[in-house]
Amino acid sequence: MASESSLQAEVNRLRLQVEHLQVKDGSEPVYIGQYLLTRLEQLKVTKMFGVPGDFNLGFLDLVEDHPTIDWVGNCNELNASYAADGYARVKEHSLGVVLTTFGVGELSATNGIAGAFSEMVPVLHIAGVPSMAQQKTKPMLHHTLGDGRYDAYIKAAENFSISQAILTSKENAAAEIDRVLTDCITRARPVYLTLPTNLVYEKISSARLKIPLSRLPPPNDPDVQTFVIDEIVKLVQEADDDVVVLVDACAIRHDVREEVNELIKKTGFPVYSAPMGKTSVSENYERYGGIYVGSISHPEIKEKVESAKLILSIGCLKSDFNTGNFTYSIPTPRTVEFHSDHTKVQFAAFGGIGMKELLPQLTSRLQPAKRQVAVPPFTAVLPQENNDIISQAWFWPRMGQFFKPKDVILAETGTSSFGILDVPLPENSVFLAQILWGSIGWTTGATLGAAFAAQDVGLGRTILFIGDGSLQLTVQELSSMIRHGLKPIIFVLNNDGYTIERFLHGKERKYNDIAPWKWTGLLGVLGDADGTKSKSYTVHNKAELSALLDNNEFAAADKIQLVEVMMPRLDAPSALERQAELSGKTNAYVAA
Amino acid sequence: MASESSLQAEVNRLRLQVEHLQVKDGSEPVYIGQYLLTRLEQLKVTKMFGVPGDFNLGFLDLVEDHPTIDWVGNCNELNASYAADGYARVKEHSLGVVLTTFGVGELSATNGIAGAFSEMVPVLHIAGVPSMAQQKTKPMLHHTLGDGRYDAYIKAAENFSISQAILTSKENAAAEIDRVLTDCITRARPVYLTLPTNLVYEKISSARLKIPLSRLPPPNDPDVQTFVIDEIVKLVQEADDDVVVLVDACAIRHDVREEVNELIKKTGFPVYSAPMGKTSVSENYERYGGIYVGSISHPEIKEKVESAKLILSIGCLKSDFNTGNFTYSIPTPRTVEFHSDHTKVQFAAFGGIGMKELLPQLTSRLQPAKRQVAVPPFTAVLPQENNDIISQAWFWPRMGQFFKPKDVILAETGTSSFGILDVPLPENSVFLAQILWGSIGWTTGATLGAAFAAQDVGLGRTILFIGDGSLQLTVQELSSMIRHGLKPIIFVLNNDGYTIERFLHGKERKYNDIAPWKWTGLLGVLGDADGTKSKSYTVHNKAELSALLDNNEFAAADKIQLVEVMMPRLDAPSALERQAELSGKTNAYVAA
Repeated sequence: MASESSLQAEVNRLRLQVEHLQVKDGSEPVYIGQYLLTRLEQLKVTKMFGVPGDFNLGFLDLVEDHPTIDWVGNCNELNASYAADGYARVKEHSLGVVLTTFGVGELSATNGIAGAFSEMVPVLHIAGVPSMAQQKTKPMLHHTLGDGRYDAYIKAAENFSISQAILTSKENAAAEIDRVLTDCITRARPVYLTLPTNLVYEKISSARLKIPLSRLPPPNDPDVQTFVIDEIVKLVQEADDDVVVLVDACAIRHDVREEVNELIKKTGFPVYSAPMGKTSVSENYERYGGIYVGSISHPEIKEKVESAKLILSIGCLKSDFNTGNFTYSIPTPRTVEFHSDHTKVQFAAFGGIGMKELLPQLTSRLQPAKRQVAVPPFTAVLPQENNDIISQAWFWPRMGQFFKPKDVILAETGTSSFGILDVPLPENSVFLAQILWGSIGWTTGATLGAAFAAQDVGLGRTILFIGDGSLQLTVQELSSMIRHGLKPIIFVLNNDGYTIERFLHGKERKYNDIAPWKWTGLLGVLGDADGTKSKSYTVHNKAELSALLDNNEFAAADKIQLVEVMMPRLDAPSALERQAELSGKTNAYVAA
Repeated sequence: MASESSLQAEVNRLRLQVEHLQVKDGSEPVYIGQYLLTRLEQLKVTKMFGVPGDFNLGFLDLVEDHPTIDWVGNCNELNASYAADGYARVKEHSLGVVLTTFGVGELSATNGIAGAFSEMVPVLHIAGVPSMAQQKTKPMLHHTLGDGRYDAYIKAAENFSISQAILTSKENAAAEIDRVLTDCITRARPVYLTLPTNLVYEKISSARLKIPLSRLPPPNDPDVQTFVIDEIVKLVQEADDDVVVLVDACAIRHDVREEVNELIKKTGFPVYSAPMGKTSVSENYERYGGIYVGSISHPEIKEKVESAKLILSIGCLKSDFNTGNFTYSIPTPRTVEFHSDHTKVQFAAFGGIGMKELLPQLTSRLQPAKRQVAVPPFTAVLPQENNDIISQAWFWPRMGQFFKPKDVILAETGTSSFGILDVPLPENSVFLAQILWGSIGWTTGATLGAAFAAQDVGLGRTILFIGDGSLQLTVQELSSMIRHGLKPIIFVLNNDGYTIERFLHGKERKYNDIAPWKWTGLLGVLGDADGTKSKSYTVHNKAELSALLDNNEFAAADKIQLVEVMMPRLDAPSALERQAELSGKTNAYVAA
């Protein structure tokens, strides 16, 4: 089945190439700008993020007039790129799109695009650029470096995108657009497209649009695949059903959640997740044991995973924060690694054997496990504390009781991304964090994009956890949420500064302090002057927070809500404390 | 004199090289981090901007403990880079410094650094990076791209800095630091320095620190210089004293204001300024005629400049917005161009002949003009309008009456940067705008840096003009101003969206709309909860604005003040209207 559809994708691709080689004019010519928008519409894009600028205004006319794609004007380009990233993560089988202007705009988005690269999120970055005539004569336009280097921004972008289309003429514009869009969706990485002002309204053939782009990876070599499957089946048999499945980031990014589900349901193998794979498998599934993160794991999870005779590792991404600072204790001879474009069986690597096609075939070859290795229950127990302070240890399990199925939950890098790991999230909920890239401030923009995408795909509430330090970086994007009628719940963990940094270094240093803000006044200032669209709260203790969470009106999330949660300055989730201890050792500043 | 000091600079440089070649240990070793801070202290740096991150925290300990350099923790890195830029512009003979962390932090600053490159502002960008051991083994650390490309951020930075020092060992760290700092201050451009965590506390010789770095350019070749001066003197004589001096950006950036002043005072030649040269020459000087900006100029100015027999053009930077969209009408045979590193006499270019040394020698050869060509008076007359609306035509001359000597005045790209051009600014005032780079939002960060620098150099009030659209990009930096007790006056021109864009394209388009904010609530939310540190106002008409400006308490600026100025949505300064008309022609979106 998978193989057939892969072949179909290849056929489609070849048809496009043939199309291109024939160089014939289509019967209904379209503007290049329309061509691009039609492709995005086919890929189910409904929102475009960005900031207007004089090199993209002409294209924006087409966007604003488009029947199904809405323009979301952001407050700045970094936030826009974060929003496109958040949108793409929630709206699977689509992509995020950010539109900026030449130089000033596109460079402001650099960090957001690089983050999407690092974390493997399909984002299209369109930069409106000067006309081809200007690019040839290179006048000293505003937004240039003043030295005629019109290619400097492209050179920078090449470092953070998987491919680039530098449109220069109408002849190959459609093919170039198709090429980068295909790269974007099949490789789940950002791509970069320049759109010169004079080309937006050039007319080209629409013939290629009849063949949809495919997000399926190229087909695996059948002979190699058969060999690989035989090897894996043999290892499973030798392991005598003491097999553990470990799911990670790329299972989400490369779209094999369903395939993984079929595998674990059929075999009954215990399944665990790395932090970046959280919610890739239902955290309520009875054979799911929770989060494995090397030596930082709960001891029982650590024991179960590391003692298994065979680990089927699906889409692993072994970054420091995703592995307890590289403390995985899983020997290679006991590991099979499934990736988007290769498979590793013990020490042997098989290039070109991708998991999308491999997993279903493997599942069909495996039998239900004869003995069911026990799986520790994944629950978060509310600790009994003899004070009313909102501690990290109490807060996260308490939030676990608040979550509902289909919630979209974002946790900012810091106490939030560490604290939430040990809380099981409900059925069909979606968890978003930036555990590899770790750019503070990301979730504010990402929440905007995620909330839009949640509407599109029928998910429920969007809930953000962010510290006071991080929210200051990107705070203005709350305004865009109000403006577009989105209704996220935003928990601001007010612990008076950069607590994650305090744990890494400089616990009492002033550089980890921030300005004290009146958090509950923010939404009123940023667009809800009459107080009808939003509600803000401060909770000082467990009782206040619990009362709020139990309030049905609050939980219904029918307006945007901000909750300032007063927490101790030097309290951190235990996972963060342990991570900080480990990274402290590797990052030590040796005072000679 | 200039030649002597240039030679002294060369001697100093050679001494450093000799020092380096001897590779001897100094008698009092210092940490590399301290070495860098001592160099910055010598260059009169008192503030370091940036955001803490785990790869720069160790260095931040040294910064926080430094007796004369203060850490200014910004809300985000883009704002920090803008602040460093604003600081450097006001604090002449010094530089701006921004400190970020690896990847996420440094990339967020890209646009700000590129802007400093474009506009020629000396900014040092220090990126705290992983240890050399990590850089060699390339683990998948957070803040990496996940593919081992530890050099990707350096490659991006190379596009936007004039030189880079990638510190890798203690052996050449001091020489590398000195090299990029010298490039930064002599070439007035950003430089990029990576500081690995393990090197910060390595001890090195302090011997080099005894020889201060010089910001003087390399000396001119005396024979060529004599020839060039002879040629210019001949042209001046042939012009029969019908000579005009036109001063532009690089007169400020390359530090020849005094030299220009001596030239114009001795000769009495009429002097005009390009937009980017505004306030390089006193706008109250009786022989100063105002702003020349090609066909957009006031007709009398245009006539006077373009009809002169000879134009001495000092530090010109012929960008679109600085030249009325390239409509200079000054033929090359009537032009002498003075630049930092070359001189152009009519069609002949003389490489290596820089103006810093050349101008004083030229002045000594010239005589007072025998006839005084008339100069139109540069004044801004308050128009009589038969309504009470705050129009652009009325607002700027009215502000002209409010300014005082030594004010530091920032105008954001848009209606502000165009509107203020025709208003003469007072004696010893400093004008800041980003006319070439034109990144909206820049002035908010730049105001923070400028206000700090104004304190250092004994300037007065800091006054910002910014539109509601632009302020949304970088608004959180108001918080840093409150936190550090700065007292700028911020005029928010509330015209309901991106008015400059409306004039360029899409006058009635929704993409030029923004979210309506409660501007007068901002300062209270961003750090002045009890209302003691700030004051905010809204003015709806001419009478209200005039009353406020005439209020002594307001004008004294003894707390941070924000004035929301209600202005019509589709009103723009005439210079902007004319510029938009001209760029519209070149940027036209041709609908086929």
